[in-house]
Amino acid sequence: MSLVVQKFGGSSVADADSVKRVAKRIVEYRQAGHDVVVVVSAMGDSTDDLIDLAKEISPVPPARELDMLLTAGERISMAVLAMAIANLGYHAQSFTGSQAGVITDESFGKARIIDVTPGRIRSALDDGNVAIVAGFQGVSQTTKNITTLGRGGSDTTAVALAAALEADVCEIYSDVDGVFTADPRIVPSAHKINIISYEEMLEMAASGAKILMLRCVEYARRYRVPVHVRSSFSQHQGTWVTDAPIPEAFRTAQTEETEENMEQAIISGVAHDRSEAKLTIVGVPDIPGKAAEIFRTVARQEIDIDMIVQNISTRDPGRTDISFTLPMDDGAKAIEALEAGKASIGFDHIQYDDQIGKLSVVGAGMRSHPGVTATLFDALADAHINIDMISTSEIRISVVTSAELLDDAVRAAHTAYGLDADDTEAIVYGGTGR
Amino acid sequence: MSLVVQKFGGSSVADADSVKRVAKRIVEYRQAGHDVVVVVSAMGDSTDDLIDLAKEISPVPPARELDMLLTAGERISMAVLAMAIANLGYHAQSFTGSQAGVITDESFGKARIIDVTPGRIRSALDDGNVAIVAGFQGVSQTTKNITTLGRGGSDTTAVALAAALEADVCEIYSDVDGVFTADPRIVPSAHKINIISYEEMLEMAASGAKILMLRCVEYARRYRVPVHVRSSFSQHQGTWVTDAPIPEAFRTAQTEETEENMEQAIISGVAHDRSEAKLTIVGVPDIPGKAAEIFRTVARQEIDIDMIVQNISTRDPGRTDISFTLPMDDGAKAIEALEAGKASIGFDHIQYDDQIGKLSVVGAGMRSHPGVTATLFDALADAHINIDMISTSEIRISVVTSAELLDDAVRAAHTAYGLDADDTEAIVYGGTGR
Repeated sequence: MSLVVQKFGGSSVADADSVKRVAKRIVEYRQAGHDVVVVVSAMGDSTDDLIDLAKEISPVPPARELDMLLTAGERISMAVLAMAIANLGYHAQSFTGSQAGVITDESFGKARIIDVTPGRIRSALDDGNVAIVAGFQGVSQTTKNITTLGRGGSDTTAVALAAALEADVCEIYSDVDGVFTADPRIVPSAHKINIISYEEMLEMAASGAKILMLRCVEYARRYRVPVHVRSSFSQHQGTWVTDAPIPEAFRTAQTEETEENMEQAIISGVAHDRSEAKLTIVGVPDIPGKAAEIFRTVARQEIDIDMIVQNISTRDPGRTDISFTLPMDDGAKAIEALEAGKASIGFDHIQYDDQIGKLSVVGAGMRSHPGVTATLFDALADAHINIDMISTSEIRISVVTSAELLDDAVRAAHTAYGLDADDTEAIVYGGTGR
Repeated sequence: MSLVVQKFGGSSVADADSVKRVAKRIVEYRQAGHDVVVVVSAMGDSTDDLIDLAKEISPVPPARELDMLLTAGERISMAVLAMAIANLGYHAQSFTGSQAGVITDESFGKARIIDVTPGRIRSALDDGNVAIVAGFQGVSQTTKNITTLGRGGSDTTAVALAAALEADVCEIYSDVDGVFTADPRIVPSAHKINIISYEEMLEMAASGAKILMLRCVEYARRYRVPVHVRSSFSQHQGTWVTDAPIPEAFRTAQTEETEENMEQAIISGVAHDRSEAKLTIVGVPDIPGKAAEIFRTVARQEIDIDMIVQNISTRDPGRTDISFTLPMDDGAKAIEALEAGKASIGFDHIQYDDQIGKLSVVGAGMRSHPGVTATLFDALADAHINIDMISTSEIRISVVTSAELLDDAVRAAHTAYGLDADDTEAIVYGGTGR
């Protein structure tokens, strides 16, 4: 007998009718002979409603209490989902994160799962129940306080439970059909990716693809959990995130065809991100230790830096300019911290630009196929799009453009890599190097 | 230092502004040097909203899941109350019933508290926090499932916590000023009772006074917890429920005057109840064991019987008529069970009347003052109100009238016992017996 962990997001359980529809879907899996653990988010916008309530009460609510408040949302959705399943004649029991053994650290609002001890879930399954688990929440190991994992945390709950229970698959249901080669709102010819490796999915998530949170993909890769990202509004196959063959029990004609064609995909997709800003520190003394001093100053504010570029200043040969990108929301905090350290660091001034966009091309195939980078630069040049910053990894190329040209850049790249076709075809690269 | 347990009902925390108002009130107690534990109900009608949601999902939701669902209400109110207190510069931490050590049996929806182990509450107090506890909920001793105590359960949570923590007082806040000598909507001259014994309060609660649930008063009496029933919308003294002197720290000019005058009160109040119906089984064979058979039949349906009257049938000397009152909601179930046993019991037919009302006069003074019963009967006769059934306890007289005359009966009794005056004066009874 196989074990499936299914995660349903807020839009899949937005109201009573949606909850009933999801319950039917779960029961179909029971009828097919699977054991099922369901991780559920709060209904619709209810988490936002709770945040609004908290803001009405206090401008800066204590983090412990905010987490206690927000966990009420999943408590509601999990209980009504269990009721809906019972109403179809199947046994179901709901469990809070704490009851399900989701043990976290004490970082309220963004807790990390440090252990999963799903003894009660196993017992519930052994007794013939569908086990419904509240996503997004856990209990701290040290103080036994209730914690939340932050936005997207329900996906991580699902993958962590799947890992701890050694489930055959973790299905992540949402209102989209899977992972796409680009955002279909920008690129109408974008198509669903049938299968993608953990590494590629990690790069996509890190590059702004919003369908799966980075932390969740990291967890899946570490524990080799096959993840199936799909829509709760259709029965279509979605996107499999895995490095292994698709498990026997979940193979279809479609997945078999996909697996045969896997070799062909060089570029998986084009991701984009509008949430970053670029900060340039102009006139930094070109002596050892200055870059370290700058990034230590920023890191102390718990700000994640993404791309970094350092240039010799053209105006003053003894000085350099250092640019980096960071989350737009952290811009003010970074400037404040750097200005406070201005005398010590000795720079001239700061330039800040939040009208930038980042485009990333991701694909494991670029390791073995030279010329991938040139294709991107050619495509952007043809579209008259200026490149501001560049960074690369083994399987990713990212460039920063102006915000207003980002959509054009995404479309140009998508076309250049042959992703517009319904059937992805191999693009043959010539030349040497990337 | 004294310890106060305060319970705020749903109407006291109906919205953000109410929550802030309650937070201020709590902080005043901290400023006065008290340790404070707060038990809070769900905000406004939110429990009803959750029940409506459950009904949308399933006509008969599983009890375990309904309890899981309903406990979300207090989770929200307790977290926002803690936030509001923090916003006033005081430390507060919220705790679920389970975290607060409220241990219950496994009867979902109407669980009974079997133990309270408030270790985390004590620690929170020791650390200088106001401890906010979710009312109405607990965790089952055997299965660790989440349970609810049923409506009015938050009062019981407060009294149970006060007992376990050996609090100096348990304050029950609601939207009324205290316990009244009669329902002010029926008797405009009804006035607040300043102090009442546990025994009298028990009889009042059992007779339909809705301000405190029977179970809560029983708990308070067993553990000798002084209860102060008062309004969250004013600073007035409410009603003290206690057999002991009012604790030193909470004495005011008003309470001292009350305690001096305590001797005078013979009748505490007039309670009424419209929720019962009368069932008469006509033509029961007048042989031993028949009454037992009838009440066993009803008890098997878990129906609580209140008053019982047995008459010799005037039509058939070998048969009797047995009448009893029961909750109106259980009427159909009782009739069904009795009709099923008709052949065995051998009665003639059943009469059912749900147009009845019950009036109860409660007062510890009636033990030592003869003539109390006669006063009631005289008053009702003068008002041309027919008495249908009578039952008495040591400190209570209850009569059943027709439903439409109940209000008149309550007013007549209230006047007859001299309760209309603002200052209750002793009524002197003559004659012998009651």
